[in-house]
Amino acid sequence: MSALPPRVRVTDVGPRDGLQNEATPVPTDVKVAFVRALVAAGVRDVEVSSFVRPDRIPQLADAVEVFRRLGPAPAGVVYGALVPNERGLDAALAAGVGKVSVFTAATETFNQRNVNASVEGSLARFRPVVERARRAGLAVRGYVSTAFFCPYEGKTPARQAVDVARRLFDLGCDEVDVADTIGAATPPDVAAVLEGLLPHVPVERVVLHFHDTRGTALVNVVEGLRHGVTAFDTSAGGLGGCPYAPGASGNLATEDLVFLLDGLGVSTGIDLEGLRGAGRPVEAALSRRLPGKVFRAGPAPAGPRCGGPVDPGAARQRCD
Amino acid sequence: MSALPPRVRVTDVGPRDGLQNEATPVPTDVKVAFVRALVAAGVRDVEVSSFVRPDRIPQLADAVEVFRRLGPAPAGVVYGALVPNERGLDAALAAGVGKVSVFTAATETFNQRNVNASVEGSLARFRPVVERARRAGLAVRGYVSTAFFCPYEGKTPARQAVDVARRLFDLGCDEVDVADTIGAATPPDVAAVLEGLLPHVPVERVVLHFHDTRGTALVNVVEGLRHGVTAFDTSAGGLGGCPYAPGASGNLATEDLVFLLDGLGVSTGIDLEGLRGAGRPVEAALSRRLPGKVFRAGPAPAGPRCGGPVDPGAARQRCD
Repeated sequence: MSALPPRVRVTDVGPRDGLQNEATPVPTDVKVAFVRALVAAGVRDVEVSSFVRPDRIPQLADAVEVFRRLGPAPAGVVYGALVPNERGLDAALAAGVGKVSVFTAATETFNQRNVNASVEGSLARFRPVVERARRAGLAVRGYVSTAFFCPYEGKTPARQAVDVARRLFDLGCDEVDVADTIGAATPPDVAAVLEGLLPHVPVERVVLHFHDTRGTALVNVVEGLRHGVTAFDTSAGGLGGCPYAPGASGNLATEDLVFLLDGLGVSTGIDLEGLRGAGRPVEAALSRRLPGKVFRAGPAPAGPRCGGPVDPGAARQRCD
Repeated sequence: MSALPPRVRVTDVGPRDGLQNEATPVPTDVKVAFVRALVAAGVRDVEVSSFVRPDRIPQLADAVEVFRRLGPAPAGVVYGALVPNERGLDAALAAGVGKVSVFTAATETFNQRNVNASVEGSLARFRPVVERARRAGLAVRGYVSTAFFCPYEGKTPARQAVDVARRLFDLGCDEVDVADTIGAATPPDVAAVLEGLLPHVPVERVVLHFHDTRGTALVNVVEGLRHGVTAFDTSAGGLGGCPYAPGASGNLATEDLVFLLDGLGVSTGIDLEGLRGAGRPVEAALSRRLPGKVFRAGPAPAGPRCGGPVDPGAARQRCD
């Protein structure tokens, strides 16, 4: 394989992006245990919730209580939350989060349908949010959704996604998170956006957020790795569906990314079995089988079960 | 992207490998219609069935009748069948197939459990099968299963898989098909086998057969493409489970491969919508939702629905 980075930072967005797209609300105590289990498994960046109006996203209406019960993040761990505006930021600051995320689409239609604002309007609304968050010492992430395809506008021109990502970076976001919201991108789409963006935003500040709706999330991750991207968003168990393709899958499953990266020799600090364990109570609470493939199938078989010596150089390995 | 081949040959193994691993038997007329629909969608290589003892694989007990109803393959299309021995070959010849496949595992334990023979014993059994098939003008494929991982022996040493593949090639197989039977391989495993094999077997004679049990099938395909491999096996709709990981997925879905290759600019000759249509009656007959992602989610959104002009160079694309 051509040069791959030695390590990758995984942000588990299951508690936020995952649960936001699940029909069944999950009890607060299950969410809290979920976040703790993710951290115990080695995840260092968790997108815990969203401070939006409860009537807009009822699945995340308990954001304040979740953060209260979690308490401060352990050393080296960052708890993040989405904030749509200054009021959301107020709540996030009171809750003691370590990172806030603002978000805009790359396409007008999606932004209008999603938050009832133009892209320019969203960016203007974020300016004071980003400034206050930074002054308070929080990390700030800026999401660009529909960066590759939009359910209403079709293919998003790469220049358009790059333009919005740069605007977020120039506003002061510490990292820009480029999202394939509907899981329709393939590697050339990813390459086009990265080639436009990386001359202007340092690669260590770029995060890629792929949905696996059409099975392309991991090949897109590999394309990102080839461009030097070292931060990716995933969702434990593949939590979360796709509201634009009913019955389809959504987020890339954390276990699937970790399994691949383990095979590629790229370190994540995440223990696969601990991770699989984290998702099980959430699956039970949702009463639906989570789609994550490694979540379901487990690791590769470990080695000869027959007890014979293993000689990797032997032409034939016998079990006797 | 580094140089990719301009075109790929897809063998749809859904009617054989897919249906073999489905619990519910499918009526003969549904199978026949399935094969015809795959061909109508542009698939040129279909593994239709298997001439094995009906008590061993009841799902494929109607092989003779399926071929009878199909009749001769259209021009440019190849119908293949698995044959475990000379008796199976007799039936295949009588049925008028265009290609036969023989198969052995790369690991002893799997071969013993699967066909009650050593690997050497299987290769010896195939010699007359391959010779007779070639004299009859049939194409011959040789499968190496458990080429990367074995459910009993763990990691298959690359040298071992290469050795078995070369033995099949030397026996006279036109193509060697290297299979990740339990879907546990990652790209470095694929690279190791190809680097050992390609000095000895021309790349155009190598087929890769990936299972998507752990989500790695497409990244493994891309690794294969980078080594010049241009033939891959898939299963429409992602038909077929994994007998070694209950509840887990099996074959790479044909639609998912075609969607990726379309995005990469690699031609397959296959029409995605025709392909999705081919799987639906089979899904209905199985009474289970097929897992193929593009089968479920459909193609990427086509373009602005608002009717405005599309200027790919414009910095902002408005829907007004």
